[in-house]
Amino acid sequence: MRHQITGFSNPTIKRLRSLREKKHRKREGLFLAEGLRILTEALESGRTPKILVVVEDTELHPLAQKIEAATIAAGGDVIETSEAIIAKLSGKSNPQSIIGIYPDHPVPLEELDRSGSNIWLVAQALRDPGNLGTILRTGDAVGAGGLILIDDCVDPFSVEAVRASMGAVFTQQIAQARWPEFLSWLRNGSGELVGTSLNTDKDYQSVQYQSPTFLLIGNEAQGLPEEYEAECDTLVKMPMMGKADSLNAAVAASVMAYEVLNQTRQR
Amino acid sequence: MRHQITGFSNPTIKRLRSLREKKHRKREGLFLAEGLRILTEALESGRTPKILVVVEDTELHPLAQKIEAATIAAGGDVIETSEAIIAKLSGKSNPQSIIGIYPDHPVPLEELDRSGSNIWLVAQALRDPGNLGTILRTGDAVGAGGLILIDDCVDPFSVEAVRASMGAVFTQQIAQARWPEFLSWLRNGSGELVGTSLNTDKDYQSVQYQSPTFLLIGNEAQGLPEEYEAECDTLVKMPMMGKADSLNAAVAASVMAYEVLNQTRQR
Repeated sequence: MRHQITGFSNPTIKRLRSLREKKHRKREGLFLAEGLRILTEALESGRTPKILVVVEDTELHPLAQKIEAATIAAGGDVIETSEAIIAKLSGKSNPQSIIGIYPDHPVPLEELDRSGSNIWLVAQALRDPGNLGTILRTGDAVGAGGLILIDDCVDPFSVEAVRASMGAVFTQQIAQARWPEFLSWLRNGSGELVGTSLNTDKDYQSVQYQSPTFLLIGNEAQGLPEEYEAECDTLVKMPMMGKADSLNAAVAASVMAYEVLNQTRQR
Repeated sequence: MRHQITGFSNPTIKRLRSLREKKHRKREGLFLAEGLRILTEALESGRTPKILVVVEDTELHPLAQKIEAATIAAGGDVIETSEAIIAKLSGKSNPQSIIGIYPDHPVPLEELDRSGSNIWLVAQALRDPGNLGTILRTGDAVGAGGLILIDDCVDPFSVEAVRASMGAVFTQQIAQARWPEFLSWLRNGSGELVGTSLNTDKDYQSVQYQSPTFLLIGNEAQGLPEEYEAECDTLVKMPMMGKADSLNAAVAASVMAYEVLNQTRQR
């Protein structure tokens, strides 16, 4: 169904705007994604928005028309509104002119098919939504099976994480688990748990990674807790030639993930 | 010299706070870095703050005491103030308890010694300060000579870029140049210009990189302009196994930089 909404105080606009906060996303099971590129990625991954918000009185881009048609065909709503209201929803001063509201889609751990990919990314207590989104984006690029979030990570469905994922939030499976729960699932099947650590001399290129490889990424400030490192099958380090002793978390995850992918390509 | 400042409206506090804006940084030739870890990195790289700001009435961490002593020995000022004022300077709700004000230090292109490193990072029209800081951090990690900023990049001395660099803003040389100026400097010496591109089938691991390698990173949204790609000696692509056609700019730079480093390590 199509509606036009013009007022900032309209209850639907207020409700959509509330999705910028985690507690409202959780309660509604919905999240907000913006921009034609990300919404097209969603459509190609078989996901249509429950609600699509577009700028009123403008001709839609052909891709946006496709998304609109898919939204209506799936029983969703299309809202036409002003650029000012879209900016309010987006929280950006130069917002994209299209926003989709999607059901969130965490996958229960036990439903992940670990044999479906050689690489799985596992993040522990990740705090930065940009890092989380970037890791999802890299996961898509290396053909990872998905991202498993351990302990209290930032919400993968936050506006910032979705934006940084550039659509990978729709293509990657996302699971959430506490550490003991993850470990027991992990040990119930094949796979190697690999962590990066300062407490090893093993170079990350000296290891032949076993499939599937679960790459464990630690918190930005603290890295992995010692007891988590102890559970890893392999600890490796990347060469650090300068003064710093660590890389950005998303960069470390990506350099590791490409190493695993490159080994797979050479087999 | 040591001062205590208690008022938000104190002119020095106002001046330091203004350094959060680029125009004031440019005018003063100063920038703001925060946190013991980053300030210690600075000290180890031989840089002392012109002004050091610490929390009043608390015993300083031994590392902070060293920074304070070095600041005073170099003729700088130490300001003791409240946590609230430090939060105001930092712009973060949970600020670090130590802030340093440093002279910025762009290096003229012609002063870079290209033979000093195998890897140089070159960014074109980079927009995100987090990406820029992360690229500096990776530059430090791979032993890059420095970062050359082409066209209108975000300010490397912004609070966000400095934070993301984790101190690498002090260890990496930073130059700024327009594209024609960079090209003429580049072609006046040895070195290979390598760009990542969608317009090639050449795998990034199939190339033997020449030293020094200048890795050219394009704008986050547009990538490299065509005429810039045309100037590259080599265009390569990273394998993309998923739906997306690109990586985050800092991730792409880092995966490339580690490939070049890894080839160097194997020689």
